[in-house]
Amino acid sequence: MTPVSLRRAAATFLDRATRIVGADRVFAAAEDRAAYSDAMAFDPGTHAPSGAVAAETVEEIQALLRIANECGAALWPISRGKNFGYGGTAPVLAGAVILDLSRMRRIIEIDEKRGYCAVEPGVGFFDLYDRLQAMGSKLWLSVPGNAWGSVAGNALERGAGPQPYGDHGAQICGIEAVLPDGSLVRTGAGAMAGSKTWHVARNAYGPGWDQMFCQSNFGIVTKLGLWLMPAPEATMTIHLSLPEPEDLGRGVDMLYPLRQRGLIDHDAAWVSYVGIASYVGPRSQWYQGDGLLPDEVGRTIRQELGIGWWNAELNFYGAEPVIAAKLAVVKAALQPHFRDPITHTVWRQGDPFALSKAGIPGTRDMAMIGWYGGRGGHIGFSPLLPADGAQANAQLARTRRRYAEAGIDYYGAFAVGGRTIVNINEILYDRDDPKMARNVPALMDALIADAAAEGYCEYRTHIDHMDRVAASFDFNDHAMRRLNGRLKDMLDPNGVLAPGKQGIWPRRFRDR
Amino acid sequence: MTPVSLRRAAATFLDRATRIVGADRVFAAAEDRAAYSDAMAFDPGTHAPSGAVAAETVEEIQALLRIANECGAALWPISRGKNFGYGGTAPVLAGAVILDLSRMRRIIEIDEKRGYCAVEPGVGFFDLYDRLQAMGSKLWLSVPGNAWGSVAGNALERGAGPQPYGDHGAQICGIEAVLPDGSLVRTGAGAMAGSKTWHVARNAYGPGWDQMFCQSNFGIVTKLGLWLMPAPEATMTIHLSLPEPEDLGRGVDMLYPLRQRGLIDHDAAWVSYVGIASYVGPRSQWYQGDGLLPDEVGRTIRQELGIGWWNAELNFYGAEPVIAAKLAVVKAALQPHFRDPITHTVWRQGDPFALSKAGIPGTRDMAMIGWYGGRGGHIGFSPLLPADGAQANAQLARTRRRYAEAGIDYYGAFAVGGRTIVNINEILYDRDDPKMARNVPALMDALIADAAAEGYCEYRTHIDHMDRVAASFDFNDHAMRRLNGRLKDMLDPNGVLAPGKQGIWPRRFRDR
Repeated sequence: MTPVSLRRAAATFLDRATRIVGADRVFAAAEDRAAYSDAMAFDPGTHAPSGAVAAETVEEIQALLRIANECGAALWPISRGKNFGYGGTAPVLAGAVILDLSRMRRIIEIDEKRGYCAVEPGVGFFDLYDRLQAMGSKLWLSVPGNAWGSVAGNALERGAGPQPYGDHGAQICGIEAVLPDGSLVRTGAGAMAGSKTWHVARNAYGPGWDQMFCQSNFGIVTKLGLWLMPAPEATMTIHLSLPEPEDLGRGVDMLYPLRQRGLIDHDAAWVSYVGIASYVGPRSQWYQGDGLLPDEVGRTIRQELGIGWWNAELNFYGAEPVIAAKLAVVKAALQPHFRDPITHTVWRQGDPFALSKAGIPGTRDMAMIGWYGGRGGHIGFSPLLPADGAQANAQLARTRRRYAEAGIDYYGAFAVGGRTIVNINEILYDRDDPKMARNVPALMDALIADAAAEGYCEYRTHIDHMDRVAASFDFNDHAMRRLNGRLKDMLDPNGVLAPGKQGIWPRRFRDR
Repeated sequence: MTPVSLRRAAATFLDRATRIVGADRVFAAAEDRAAYSDAMAFDPGTHAPSGAVAAETVEEIQALLRIANECGAALWPISRGKNFGYGGTAPVLAGAVILDLSRMRRIIEIDEKRGYCAVEPGVGFFDLYDRLQAMGSKLWLSVPGNAWGSVAGNALERGAGPQPYGDHGAQICGIEAVLPDGSLVRTGAGAMAGSKTWHVARNAYGPGWDQMFCQSNFGIVTKLGLWLMPAPEATMTIHLSLPEPEDLGRGVDMLYPLRQRGLIDHDAAWVSYVGIASYVGPRSQWYQGDGLLPDEVGRTIRQELGIGWWNAELNFYGAEPVIAAKLAVVKAALQPHFRDPITHTVWRQGDPFALSKAGIPGTRDMAMIGWYGGRGGHIGFSPLLPADGAQANAQLARTRRRYAEAGIDYYGAFAVGGRTIVNINEILYDRDDPKMARNVPALMDALIADAAAEGYCEYRTHIDHMDRVAASFDFNDHAMRRLNGRLKDMLDPNGVLAPGKQGIWPRRFRDR
């Protein structure tokens, strides 16, 4: 399959798609292609789609898959396309057609008592939040830092939020998906028609397939059940900061045993000061020079913002006497690490909300892309580490060295679980800076290679780097890639669905 | 494939297997076949294997799969074969050869700090417990009622225990499996050679496959990572009882919101009084007549044992001030439902253990099979319900009516989660009673049909009923069965691995 023949297939597909969805939902003009490219890319052309089609129903998706199979087009489904830092709306394979599901915005069900919702892929966090508010619901969302995306899409990509239900992929319970051949399946208990436990029972009969549709290209998810947290009576919050970069190690070691023992109910992230500064405003307000932020400017930033090199927020959610008890145990464990007495704030039902604690969607974090000025962008490097301070410190040293070589200010966050750390590193840049255009991809490559050499895999990556990360899974001569490839070929023999996603390629593109 | 040709293939396989594992690990005599049949069956011949082979290494398993593929034998892997009530060691398909993994007893790793173990399939709960004790480990097991089985096998079949880590399948993190063609894969982060996060990171890159190997026949699991609970500083226990059968509904409704809010940390089960009496001794000590236990005898039993019609134990695990706070909130919520003040007991590190609270393996529950005397047996009927008292009561009424029609004393347990109920019904019998031999299978059939008509699926079932339960998953003309069949044919084209498990059949047996 050559790029030319793929674009020719796409043109045929787009033409035939108008007969299914109407001309007003087929987007094939140059400005449409630009709108569906990666808004954060130095060169959006690398992953430029051939156009887009918006589907509104399962039947339309089935019909579109049928013609894609017939004419050999490649489809790249997006829910709301807000997966910024990992590729946004853009496909891995230039010339693919975007299948835009953002119009499928039905909130199918909210079960107030059982604490779940079932949504179509186009439902955004704001949509769901508004609906819950309008209902007077006592359920809370877990929202990612930038919450303009899709509830289902974020869960399927394993997004995260700093809440007890913050591992969004783990909250999935019951999926409906269209397979590449157009057949419709429901996972879990939903495989029974008229099931009363589709979105409550995790352990239905037989193998479990919910996670098969996460970060993959085996089907198009059209309905998704997601567990929601019952609103707590109260929350309590502690802010912690540590003064030096190498304090990260003890920062990890002080938190993970408390998280593992259930005394902390969410993955709390140590965020480096540049990250916090980037939410506040551009770097130019602190420093107008080129190259890395000088140490003394860093000190000024921390002083003026009243933050440490590392900063974490611990939230406790639940019945007030219970979280007060947890807070007391946690404070007692943490106090020896800090000079000043650890203080906390309390919020109770009826008090006005503070943003980060109440599952209210926001988009504040996206301000970070303005750090360098110009047309900003960011890309995420997201390895997983064991919960271990020494390993976190060593990883930090490696990563900072690579950032310094690339001339990019280091911004990292270490979200501390009970057994693992999700280490999200944001690389902020100015898309109009030609030096950054050279250095950022090289930095990503170096970071991925360093991590793999240490035995750390990434949990998610940008479309530019999906093959490289996939290649790092090399046990038994890449046995998992071969298994994924076999499954892909069986389910998608014509290779029409999201070729290359997470490095999973169908046969026709495998030797490109 | 006829039964005769399958047995002929098995004979060839057993013969050739001696060249791989040696004659002392090939078991083909009549008494061997009997030993590997279902020890609880009325007619063990229905699922009689052709023999058994014990493998000790991954390489042996690969070699055995190779010859099975060559000669067309069917292999039925067992870990320790203690899945009593669901078939024990026996295969769905008579004539299959048991692949006995109980000699693979290596405890590969215990990470005290990160709280996990990695085990081979033959490691039993007692083995692991002994090892943890010998190490002076601060990790606790979650054990099922009868704990003589395999740690890995129990997790893969989604066994459960009344502890915070009691959803054993959900504790799996990272698997090594031999696929039917002999290729070796590792799931999750373990797909990277030298991974440092195999058994800690749930959300590795790409689709998740741990649950693909649960209750399925897609591979033979040779290593399994399982999360273990950090030992609590203290536990507190409440015993609750309710006097009447129809109290079940309020029993469910009083618990599930507390469970969902994290005030109760495990699925507490309401167990009917016959179940508890069956652990104590045979029915004959209360009643020597035929037919159902008369109501007045039931009353006597409850009075003498000091129990209710329904009985539940709530355990709180953790830091003492935290669980004291939880206990107080839970007591306050529950007290209005009970006349007597709710009391509790406290256990602290250093105190002598009470069995059910400390993750110590035991086998007490198996005493239940002596209820009717003779050669006892039991079979489980295990539907899933939403957490809803009214639905639980209706299900109870239906189930009790069916038990009564069959002349079997009702014994049910409703394990109350935050969103779902696992309703384990044990059917106890005397294998030598010809009336029971007729009535028990008919009872199972009626129960499965009733549940499916209501939209309730089973989460697990006996080998006798796997097809019937699979058939109840009928959404879109059994789309899930077709998907499982497609996956099976792709991974196991010769249909050698556990044909019929959970109703998943390879092509060569599909039209039998």
